[in-house]
Amino acid sequence: MATTSSITIRRARRDDVGSIVAMLADDPLGSARERLADPLPPSYFQAFEAVDRDPNIHLMVAQDGEADVVGCLQLCILPGLSSQGAARGLIEDVRVAASCRSRGIGEQLVQWAVTEARNRGCKLVELLTHKTRIDAQRFYVRLGFQPSHVGMTLRF
Amino acid sequence: MATTSSITIRRARRDDVGSIVAMLADDPLGSARERLADPLPPSYFQAFEAVDRDPNIHLMVAQDGEADVVGCLQLCILPGLSSQGAARGLIEDVRVAASCRSRGIGEQLVQWAVTEARNRGCKLVELLTHKTRIDAQRFYVRLGFQPSHVGMTLRF
Repeated sequence: MATTSSITIRRARRDDVGSIVAMLADDPLGSARERLADPLPPSYFQAFEAVDRDPNIHLMVAQDGEADVVGCLQLCILPGLSSQGAARGLIEDVRVAASCRSRGIGEQLVQWAVTEARNRGCKLVELLTHKTRIDAQRFYVRLGFQPSHVGMTLRF
Repeated sequence: MATTSSITIRRARRDDVGSIVAMLADDPLGSARERLADPLPPSYFQAFEAVDRDPNIHLMVAQDGEADVVGCLQLCILPGLSSQGAARGLIEDVRVAASCRSRGIGEQLVQWAVTEARNRGCKLVELLTHKTRIDAQRFYVRLGFQPSHVGMTLRF
C-alpha cells in the first residue's frame, strides 16, 4: 500500500469491480467494449477472481480519501528467457476517473507499478497504448518510457 | 502438439534452453542483451523453471524432424477485467533460426498461439515488435494483426 496526499494505491477488492468497469467504459474505445449493466455481467467477477488468485497479477486501485476509487491499473509480472532470464512487467488498463484527472493519480499508479516491477526483478516494463491516445503517449514519455515498439493487436 | 510437414510445435523442455537462447541472441537487438556463454548463466534455467510451472505461460518451440529446435515463441494468457472480463493473449520472443527462415515456421508458431489463445477464451491477442523490425510488422499484418498501438518500454 502506498500513500501520497489523499490518494492511496492499494490492491483491488471484489467490491471495487463496479468502479473499475465504470472507468474502463468511460472512454470512446472502452465504451464499445464494456457492458455497464446493473447488475454487472458475472464475467467481470469471474475475471476478478482469476486475477486475484494469480500471484503474478496485481490489479490495483487509487482510492481518494476514505472511500472513492478514482483510478486503476493492472501489472503482470511475466517470467521469460530473454534478457538473461529477467522477468518483464506489463502494464494494462490504466484509467483515472474523468473528474479526477490532472491530479497526478495516473502518475502515482504507474510509478507504483514501475517500482513493484523493479522490486520483483524486472529489467523491462512494457505497455501498449492506442495510437490515438496522444496524451497518454506524452504522459508515458514524461515518466521515462520510450515509444520504441509497434503494438500489434488481433481481436476475435 | 501440432505438426505440419516436418515441423512440430511443442512445449519447450529444459534441454531446449540453449537452443532458445541462441536464437534470442542471434539478432542485432538480442545480441546486446543475452549472454551466450558455455555453460549458460543459471538465470536462464531459473527463468525456464518459472515459466514452466506457470499454467498461464506457454513457452513453445518448433522442432524440425526428430531433433533440431528451429523456432520459439512465448504465449501468456492474462486474465483481466476489460472487454467484459475476457482474457488477453500476449505473444513474446518469437524467433526462427536464421538458416530456417522463409519456410513458414514463424507463421506456424504464431498460428498455434492465436488458436490456443482463442481456445482459452481470449478476445484479443497482442504483441510488441520493435519499430525497426519492418519485416516482422508486415508478417503480423499478413496474419491479421493491426498496428493499432504504440508499444512503450522502460528498461532499467
